[in-house]
Amino acid sequence: MLPSAKKTTKWNCCPAGKSTGTPIGFIIRNSDAKSKDYEHIREVYRPSHADFTYDAKYGIRDHRGGGRSSARETAARVVAGAVAKLLLSRAQVSIHAYVSQVGDIKLNLPYSALDLSKTEDNIVRCPDAAVAAEMIRLIEDIRKQGDTIGGVISGVIKNAPAGLGEPVFDKLHADLGKAMLGINAAKAFEYGSGFAGVEMKGSQHNDAFIPGTGSRKIVTKSNYSGGIQGGISNGEDIYFRVAFKPVATIIQKQITVNKKGQPVEVMGKGRHDPCVLPRAVPIVEAMAALVMADHLLRAKTNG
Amino acid sequence: MLPSAKKTTKWNCCPAGKSTGTPIGFIIRNSDAKSKDYEHIREVYRPSHADFTYDAKYGIRDHRGGGRSSARETAARVVAGAVAKLLLSRAQVSIHAYVSQVGDIKLNLPYSALDLSKTEDNIVRCPDAAVAAEMIRLIEDIRKQGDTIGGVISGVIKNAPAGLGEPVFDKLHADLGKAMLGINAAKAFEYGSGFAGVEMKGSQHNDAFIPGTGSRKIVTKSNYSGGIQGGISNGEDIYFRVAFKPVATIIQKQITVNKKGQPVEVMGKGRHDPCVLPRAVPIVEAMAALVMADHLLRAKTNG
Amino acid sequence: MLPSAKKTTKWNCCPAGKSTGTPIGFIIRNSDAKSKDYEHIREVYRPSHADFTYDAKYGIRDHRGGGRSSARETAARVVAGAVAKLLLSRAQVSIHAYVSQVGDIKLNLPYSALDLSKTEDNIVRCPDAAVAAEMIRLIEDIRKQGDTIGGVISGVIKNAPAGLGEPVFDKLHADLGKAMLGINAAKAFEYGSGFAGVEMKGSQHNDAFIPGTGSRKIVTKSNYSGGIQGGISNGEDIYFRVAFKPVATIIQKQITVNKKGQPVEVMGKGRHDPCVLPRAVPIVEAMAALVMADHLLRAKTNG
Amino acid sequence: MLPSAKKTTKWNCCPAGKSTGTPIGFIIRNSDAKSKDYEHIREVYRPSHADFTYDAKYGIRDHRGGGRSSARETAARVVAGAVAKLLLSRAQVSIHAYVSQVGDIKLNLPYSALDLSKTEDNIVRCPDAAVAAEMIRLIEDIRKQGDTIGGVISGVIKNAPAGLGEPVFDKLHADLGKAMLGINAAKAFEYGSGFAGVEMKGSQHNDAFIPGTGSRKIVTKSNYSGGIQGGISNGEDIYFRVAFKPVATIIQKQITVNKKGQPVEVMGKGRHDPCVLPRAVPIVEAMAALVMADHLLRAKTNG
Repeated sequence: MLPSAKKTTKWNCCPAGKSTGTPIGFIIRNSDAKSKDYEHIREVYRPSHADFTYDAKYGIRDHRGGGRSSARETAARVVAGAVAKLLLSRAQVSIHAYVSQVGDIKLNLPYSALDLSKTEDNIVRCPDAAVAAEMIRLIEDIRKQGDTIGGVISGVIKNAPAGLGEPVFDKLHADLGKAMLGINAAKAFEYGSGFAGVEMKGSQHNDAFIPGTGSRKIVTKSNYSGGIQGGISNGEDIYFRVAFKPVATIIQKQITVNKKGQPVEVMGKGRHDPCVLPRAVPIVEAMAALVMADHLLRAKTNG
Repeated sequence: MLPSAKKTTKWNCCPAGKSTGTPIGFIIRNSDAKSKDYEHIREVYRPSHADFTYDAKYGIRDHRGGGRSSARETAARVVAGAVAKLLLSRAQVSIHAYVSQVGDIKLNLPYSALDLSKTEDNIVRCPDAAVAAEMIRLIEDIRKQGDTIGGVISGVIKNAPAGLGEPVFDKLHADLGKAMLGINAAKAFEYGSGFAGVEMKGSQHNDAFIPGTGSRKIVTKSNYSGGIQGGISNGEDIYFRVAFKPVATIIQKQITVNKKGQPVEVMGKGRHDPCVLPRAVPIVEAMAALVMADHLLRAKTNG
Repeated sequence: MLPSAKKTTKWNCCPAGKSTGTPIGFIIRNSDAKSKDYEHIREVYRPSHADFTYDAKYGIRDHRGGGRSSARETAARVVAGAVAKLLLSRAQVSIHAYVSQVGDIKLNLPYSALDLSKTEDNIVRCPDAAVAAEMIRLIEDIRKQGDTIGGVISGVIKNAPAGLGEPVFDKLHADLGKAMLGINAAKAFEYGSGFAGVEMKGSQHNDAFIPGTGSRKIVTKSNYSGGIQGGISNGEDIYFRVAFKPVATIIQKQITVNKKGQPVEVMGKGRHDPCVLPRAVPIVEAMAALVMADHLLRAKTNG
Repeated sequence: MLPSAKKTTKWNCCPAGKSTGTPIGFIIRNSDAKSKDYEHIREVYRPSHADFTYDAKYGIRDHRGGGRSSARETAARVVAGAVAKLLLSRAQVSIHAYVSQVGDIKLNLPYSALDLSKTEDNIVRCPDAAVAAEMIRLIEDIRKQGDTIGGVISGVIKNAPAGLGEPVFDKLHADLGKAMLGINAAKAFEYGSGFAGVEMKGSQHNDAFIPGTGSRKIVTKSNYSGGIQGGISNGEDIYFRVAFKPVATIIQKQITVNKKGQPVEVMGKGRHDPCVLPRAVPIVEAMAALVMADHLLRAKTNG
């Protein structure tokens, strides 16, 4: 759950609204922290949370709020992503993400058939109003059950110039994949044709090059490549999908163990988020923006 | 296509068969290079190859063999992975990969129901003999059509200790994902429940902790988490799937453009690989080994 | 000039006084900032300050206080060094620095002939009381002239285990040197015999190995190597010297140019520090601690 | 001692004499290796060599030739530096190094009073013929004694644009210092006024800015800063000095210990280099070129 940022610290670092080259720092104070809400899990490992693994790694755990394993941490990424977007906008690169699936409710149209400007028109951040309504209904049902549900976020990066990405280890899609998989609850990443592409033949999957118009002399007829070939952008749209698992905290009794390994029961308390997908849309955009900005800067060292 | 390594250079670097701390160097000479086979693409961008993007990035392209965009490059990774596996074996960590899908032929059993020691028993590296036979048949058909087909490789990492992985940006599965997506032709990565998990409820997906036996005091009842929670290993099996697109080189006429952006036709010549999947199995294992070895070494700095 | 830290923010991050693995954050608010004191240099490049080079690099400059080019920035390094020292103390590694020269007043004894516990007994941080008195007198003279003076800080690292440092690019002394040269106003670094060693013959300079006592089986008779051989620590004391130039801000009229390149006069105002050396002692210790802690952690990945 | 490179492997990687973006690889085969020459030190730690520290670090040592601790390793750096110089030459940046001291024979003129084009006119690489003759005489004497001697190499970087270097940890002179200290036998680094500057007053040491001519609108009257202010280049000449200790291998009996810590005698055999300075000149230039090329590339990401 993202914090409500009621109070931020404004630093007087930027004369005339411009950055000076100094790292841009900021603080978001969590004015809504309720440490007591976590007292019941001080000695208990919640199923599918990071309680056990943090203890295994560090030998110590701050049980209050999940610590760094909480998605609160991603608020900082969204701030960083906003700065990256400023840089990208100077190169006309734009990034859009939206919820394309919640549970078994799927938005089956490709991004190119959607009006992405409608993404913020509803609380699930799905640009198709009818599908959004179904998603909202499903989430409401799930919430009443004290349960949670996963989903998929789709992302599109438009106007990335050809030539971004490194040929071997820092392929553009590999960096995007790592960035997405680094978001809390992410379980999968695919770009272009993704998993569906494995059933296609080369003769179907290959994207024929054809003469373009305007500033782009060469374009592709189809785009199963997802805008990236050999790890390097080709100027077409870069599109991808990220899967998110259902939230681990449920308002139901669950069996688990405590620090000593003894069986105990645990039950979620207080605030409860039945579906993380809508909140993850800006995080997906932010992480994509950071990756693209990094590669834009890298590309400046060429030529 | 991987090179046939007829001739290697043995360096006298390791007294008594032990490494000395000096970087381990090696050369694999490609004694089977046929530069002339690529003469017809000197000025032509092959569809869904990296010809165009390399030119866009570097302003120059060595058309002979695809250069670094060829999967030949991965031979070096397999060597490095072999060294990483030596290190992992001292910690009892083992890594297995196998072909679980070719085109629409799927091995539907989970890895735990398979005898992974049979992976090398057939040329498609699928541990189920019956499914392997179907895959071989499909690939043979595809080959006769001068076409290509994609597929999926599944991987399992066993006995990884709990506590590997970093909590924010270098989550263990994010590093695995980046490593896999860095393999030529990879289009997607999922671990644990992956894309299928998005349709599950939290009450189904959560992995209950229960008392273990032997050296592992705490284990999980199910393993939808895929052995990683909050980016850090929990001691359960780590399992994942990687999608590979069909090979771009087909023995069929295709439309494309040349460097000047003029429409031309191009057709694959000479050696032709209808399905890259079986050859990619050792690459997947090697990349997984490198990631796990890195994290094992990192973990040594704790405590 | 270091800020006076009247007010710090205490974060409730460490249950039971222990770190949790989360990055340790802190804020030092500069409650003594006087932005107006810098108004006269808004358009002027002060001689031997970073005003001109920051403008050349970033195209923008915050003239108030020198920004990141001020040694205020090093306060953060001292905090980080304090944490590093906690880690080093567990390995019995200790670090001592002191002022060994101010202007032409030199402390001619080697560190081994000094009682380093007396370093904090006087305001110039020189462990020899008589020499300290001379240094203080010189600095007072310089201050009255509205001028400034440079000096040398010597450092000693004791009980570093043998085997720290990397053999080629990250040699232990190279990392120490970079760390020291990264401190504001540092102009030179030498370790072991340093510049003086160039006039010695090999037969004089070589450090004979001899049998040791206690836990150290092998020691050296002399230590011109400065505790590091081939970039790797040998268990002897590591000692080094760092030169600091005179502070650039003087209370005298100086010619310079403004942003347009036009000749102008400039004169230092307000607070004035005639000699940076005493304040730099904790910074030298902190930077040494950070380097040694890094290499101790790296060394854990061996064996 | 640098290898005699009788045989190199030419790779056919560069169509039309241009690099393709692929890493530039090369092999220098040491056709002059005489492993038997080192048999007598198989179990012995030579004084002031890296024999003991390598064993302490790795637990294993290849006694034949010193392994990576030999300056043979720097041949690779010289190759890399040659490539970096190509890049620098496009920005008109030039780098010159020369021997300015051997033992107590010093070239007392500043670099600006020398004709650096004469550096290669004699075998000690000292651009002053008279001083060079003295140096050669001293080295010859030292050689006859079976002894060795140290010295100083001076370096100058001309035409570096203003704005190179990072403001805090990767200051330009800190990176240069680390690079120089990473060369075998280096004991000290200073730039600009260096150790001598500590005795100067600020009013003497400050480099007044004055209007320039041609493309450089602002220059400095003096250059005690050594072309770098606040870690960032200011467009003036960057100059520095590197101290090298006497070579550790001498043709004299020395006491030392063997692996068991028992006292033994050791004596240098075979090839013997009484002074490393002349050979280190191209290494100093190469390392400077690598640092400057890195910072030139970094600077491209600005603006």
